[in-house]
Amino acid sequence: METGQIRLNKVTGEWVIYAPSRRKRPQDFQQSNQALSSDNHSQKNCPFCLQIYKESEKILLEIKDYQQDLWQTKVVANKFPALNFHENPQRNLEGIYMSLSGYGHHEVVIESPDHYQTIATLSIPEIEAIIETYHQRYLKLMKDKEIMMVIIFRNHGKGAGASLRHPHSQIIASNIVPSHRRIQEAEAQRYFDHWGRCVYCDILEFELNEKIRVILENNLFVSFVPYAAEFPCEIWIMPKEHQADFGSITAEEKTAFATILKDSLSRLYYKLNNPDYNYVINTAARYKAEEPQLHWYCQIRPRLTTPAGFELGSGISINPSIPEVDAAFLRE
Amino acid sequence: METGQIRLNKVTGEWVIYAPSRRKRPQDFQQSNQALSSDNHSQKNCPFCLQIYKESEKILLEIKDYQQDLWQTKVVANKFPALNFHENPQRNLEGIYMSLSGYGHHEVVIESPDHYQTIATLSIPEIEAIIETYHQRYLKLMKDKEIMMVIIFRNHGKGAGASLRHPHSQIIASNIVPSHRRIQEAEAQRYFDHWGRCVYCDILEFELNEKIRVILENNLFVSFVPYAAEFPCEIWIMPKEHQADFGSITAEEKTAFATILKDSLSRLYYKLNNPDYNYVINTAARYKAEEPQLHWYCQIRPRLTTPAGFELGSGISINPSIPEVDAAFLRE
Repeated sequence: METGQIRLNKVTGEWVIYAPSRRKRPQDFQQSNQALSSDNHSQKNCPFCLQIYKESEKILLEIKDYQQDLWQTKVVANKFPALNFHENPQRNLEGIYMSLSGYGHHEVVIESPDHYQTIATLSIPEIEAIIETYHQRYLKLMKDKEIMMVIIFRNHGKGAGASLRHPHSQIIASNIVPSHRRIQEAEAQRYFDHWGRCVYCDILEFELNEKIRVILENNLFVSFVPYAAEFPCEIWIMPKEHQADFGSITAEEKTAFATILKDSLSRLYYKLNNPDYNYVINTAARYKAEEPQLHWYCQIRPRLTTPAGFELGSGISINPSIPEVDAAFLRE
Repeated sequence: METGQIRLNKVTGEWVIYAPSRRKRPQDFQQSNQALSSDNHSQKNCPFCLQIYKESEKILLEIKDYQQDLWQTKVVANKFPALNFHENPQRNLEGIYMSLSGYGHHEVVIESPDHYQTIATLSIPEIEAIIETYHQRYLKLMKDKEIMMVIIFRNHGKGAGASLRHPHSQIIASNIVPSHRRIQEAEAQRYFDHWGRCVYCDILEFELNEKIRVILENNLFVSFVPYAAEFPCEIWIMPKEHQADFGSITAEEKTAFATILKDSLSRLYYKLNNPDYNYVINTAARYKAEEPQLHWYCQIRPRLTTPAGFELGSGISINPSIPEVDAAFLRE
């Protein structure tokens, strides 16, 4: 079995994963080959509809709907993992460079037995089961002491990188913390050291007063378009109470989060005709769960524009849509 | 005239540009509308083939081919600028947030009169004229004392964000330096303070010894796949002599750069069947041109994969291709 590798970019401090199970030859990327590739979106070929029932040994978690005697969600190991827990977690020097073995976990959360649903169309109890699944796997994965960070994310639609239509999310647990995350920690730390407060809590308070970027709220969560949204109709969903770590979510908060997540995604679904999107749950890395300046949130990025050379080269986004206009559109 | 704005993301320290000339309403992004939108790739509708001759007052630079009495390259103001030099360059507080007016320059370099060419198919003297054009505009734009940074980039193909087929590059000059760039400066500074050397010079020396990631070289430039490439067949072209600032490029280096740029892009063009790609010239911001730890380079990113939720959320790339394999493929 080929081993995976994570390499450090010496000039940016960023990591890149090279996964053996996803490996392609350069010629596989020829434009004509690309066009021929996968239509894995039909139910006929769907591995989550077909195979999963036969390979029960691979099921890491299953949440049942006791009333209907059916499963609601299942978690399985990703068939083409980016990281693998069979690797020996070890850092290596390669001349002037540093690499790690590709240690980690990569799991798939199958969100429903129904191939044709998505979060916008599922019921709130069904979405609660998904959040419950995230939470149980999050706590389980953080028990692996090698793991520094758990990233829960969802790709919806081909333009957002989804290779299967069947509703699913993914969880990647790794033994590195990206500089991307450390930079946000440092920004929040500086703000806390200056103002003595959590920058995210201050943003929430400001947005709830201003109201112009708020889409909706319930007793425990707020859904809003951030002031400096990078993408048209970008949405952040944030717990109102200070909470650095997604692992600390309470039962009551799970229900409130499921409710606001469904409502936010339904607005995208119906108002923008089911756009492609990604969401990620940004949460504290290991050892940061109790920090007073960090705050978890779910970031939803509709994939309505194509970042080009300027964005890739500068790290500056160009957003053709105005956050206040997006919020009004999504609110009404 | 609506004014543009640049907003600071308070939790990441990154800037986002809101350009009035590019503004859309949220409903314009509905999937069905997207599918109907522009085919601006045909010659019949090409503004660079048609209109440009009538609006000579907008031409900022023109390089002539004296032998053939034709123009080789032209520079015009972007019709839909991301930034605008009519804005008053000014910072504002909006409650807890910071914004800037959208001050800056946004220019288009029309690289050839021929609609159907691209850099891979142009002659070396024609590409030299493009590099000469970049250089002249770079020096000119840096004379505007408000400008902190000039970004020269090229989008090739729809998947790389190009809206027109006619061969062209773009130049954006802004009065902000993105945190993206400051982070690279800090990494290079730390390396210099530890080792007393430029990290980019050390990478070049190491790569020229190792050879496994080098695609080709000439007397003044090296073209290689970086050790931690984020994209399949990513290519960096770097001057062999230490040079922080693209503005310092010599006449001899322009020829050598044109030659290696054509050869590198031709390899992508012929071996991968004309893939979409972006390139950007990463060069020093104002006041950094003489720094011993910075080094300009041209970064070519083929757009063969779709970054998904994990990449957007973590800042960690997943590259299905191995840099050494890519380099061998492009070398042969």
